[in-house]
Amino acid sequence: MLIIDCHGHYTTAPAPHQDFRARQLAWLEDPAQPMPRPGAISDDAIRDSLEGNQLKLQRARGADLTLFSPRASAMAHHQGNEAVSAGWARACNDLIKRVVDLYPDNFVGVCQLPQSPGVPIAHSVGELERCVRELGFVGCNLNPDPSGGHWRSPPLTDRHWYPFYEKMCELDVLAMVHVSASCNANFHATGAHYINADTTAFMQFIEGDLFKDFPALRFIIPHGGGAVPYHWGRYRGLADMLKRPALATHVMRNVWFDTCVYHQPGIDLLVRVIDLDNILFGSEMLGAVRGVDPQTGHPFDDTRRYIDALPLAAADKRRIFELNARRVYPRLDAQLKARGL
Amino acid sequence: MLIIDCHGHYTTAPAPHQDFRARQLAWLEDPAQPMPRPGAISDDAIRDSLEGNQLKLQRARGADLTLFSPRASAMAHHQGNEAVSAGWARACNDLIKRVVDLYPDNFVGVCQLPQSPGVPIAHSVGELERCVRELGFVGCNLNPDPSGGHWRSPPLTDRHWYPFYEKMCELDVLAMVHVSASCNANFHATGAHYINADTTAFMQFIEGDLFKDFPALRFIIPHGGGAVPYHWGRYRGLADMLKRPALATHVMRNVWFDTCVYHQPGIDLLVRVIDLDNILFGSEMLGAVRGVDPQTGHPFDDTRRYIDALPLAAADKRRIFELNARRVYPRLDAQLKARGL
Repeated sequence: MLIIDCHGHYTTAPAPHQDFRARQLAWLEDPAQPMPRPGAISDDAIRDSLEGNQLKLQRARGADLTLFSPRASAMAHHQGNEAVSAGWARACNDLIKRVVDLYPDNFVGVCQLPQSPGVPIAHSVGELERCVRELGFVGCNLNPDPSGGHWRSPPLTDRHWYPFYEKMCELDVLAMVHVSASCNANFHATGAHYINADTTAFMQFIEGDLFKDFPALRFIIPHGGGAVPYHWGRYRGLADMLKRPALATHVMRNVWFDTCVYHQPGIDLLVRVIDLDNILFGSEMLGAVRGVDPQTGHPFDDTRRYIDALPLAAADKRRIFELNARRVYPRLDAQLKARGL
Repeated sequence: MLIIDCHGHYTTAPAPHQDFRARQLAWLEDPAQPMPRPGAISDDAIRDSLEGNQLKLQRARGADLTLFSPRASAMAHHQGNEAVSAGWARACNDLIKRVVDLYPDNFVGVCQLPQSPGVPIAHSVGELERCVRELGFVGCNLNPDPSGGHWRSPPLTDRHWYPFYEKMCELDVLAMVHVSASCNANFHATGAHYINADTTAFMQFIEGDLFKDFPALRFIIPHGGGAVPYHWGRYRGLADMLKRPALATHVMRNVWFDTCVYHQPGIDLLVRVIDLDNILFGSEMLGAVRGVDPQTGHPFDDTRRYIDALPLAAADKRRIFELNARRVYPRLDAQLKARGL
């Protein structure tokens, strides 16, 4: 059995990378200057940033492979403009590609998209295509709120997003619905905005008919599906009240939840109410919560422990750890098969 | 043991009441006309609106008493202006008072507040005081987002809200954090906006130091605390990462969750992770979800069944059904004692 972590971000990228971002944003103050370019980062700097962090924890926790994308909170699509966002996404994705090339057994690439408030999503298609066709990435993170907590884009079920979905289907890649930093003081990024976005996306899928138009479109709603599994009765009841089809057919053929839920009772609930075929192992390591749970003595985000503790057959755990991911990421499956895995 | 439902809204108010609202909003188009006044509603119309609905279900489900407030989704603080909102809140609260007078054994009043985007919260103090001192209400619903899904007010921990908290403490009344309708197409009201607001408020309380300034201030976060219990590990971990005190002392001396979670697994999780002293029985009946769960054959919002099914001692269930409510609503407790209960 492979242990595939579907949710990892490069939160420890070398300093010159974040410095490039700072120079980008500073450049906006004086755009007569030439646009900044990414700074040099050595292979050793990349190795150093990973060996003591994600790689160490992969080994310690027994994960084989992480689907690795740029730091979500740093996407910050609300900052800058379309050109800045495009340059930043490209630099972030190129760095992920270098990580994958240095550690092809440990990481598979998932891309950040260039998005900006008010910019048509069709402008994000090129970077997706580049990352999938040229860099070998297997998915992307799609931000439903590039305004950063002001929620000024149409719902994910709106035709606004369709040009992007067409390309996702053509490339047969999945999107994780993932917001970024919040510039709305009401919403702490990882404590409110992320979880709210997950809940919001799910309810949009109930209200809309997106998967009738795109039967093959696939999303992960991360962080255990936000509030949804805890309120599963509410969502089943709302679907009924709104005269929508049952969730199993209307939404759950196209949507998966990860296991980024940082305590045993939450994971227990998740597997109790959600079909195991809709759950992908994920940890978001190193991400939102990096400490040790004093109640267990283990890191909050060591989500493998919670799955291991479930009273499930080994074959069922394998669905969560490996098989569901290989099914929903066909390009990942193809890469693994090419390696004889 | 009394069964006290802390979360009921008058969702079935007679037609002239909603008609008054329609005339209010129409008046905004032509404010040279005299401001509309509430239409006449007979006692019989009020009885009719309740007998076949909330009262029938109270009896069928064995609840004794509902803390009853105006329909939350109709507060719609984003519509109209300060004068319209004030007139609407007063009419809604006066109608609740009539319900309480007609059925003093079944209902206790909780008030809607006049709020409007950009209007100082000090302007809401008068209606709270009127409802508590003159009408005998025991609490209020406070909307953290009067913009209706655009989230343009400061966080609940901001000094913006302090004039209202001072009055709450003076009157010794509790607020339920409760948003209203959403005018942001991203957020379905009961499926996303409500749950997101619950999650958001909790995270604001973690980030802030509100309860240091107001040690006696008390809130209910409804709908089972939004996403919070499901992600309890995340919130414990975030409090630690943000160098906040432990949740038990920093937030949970001042915050309670209700049981508006519409399936057994959700309620099981709630009582597993949240101290029983922080849980109040609530159903939101008749509210967001009115259908019958095909998995159980019982209404989704018959939350008493989920509590009854818990493997808890009778004394512990009594905390959830009665004693916690009497503790956090001292004015309710005084009213009950005056009746010999």
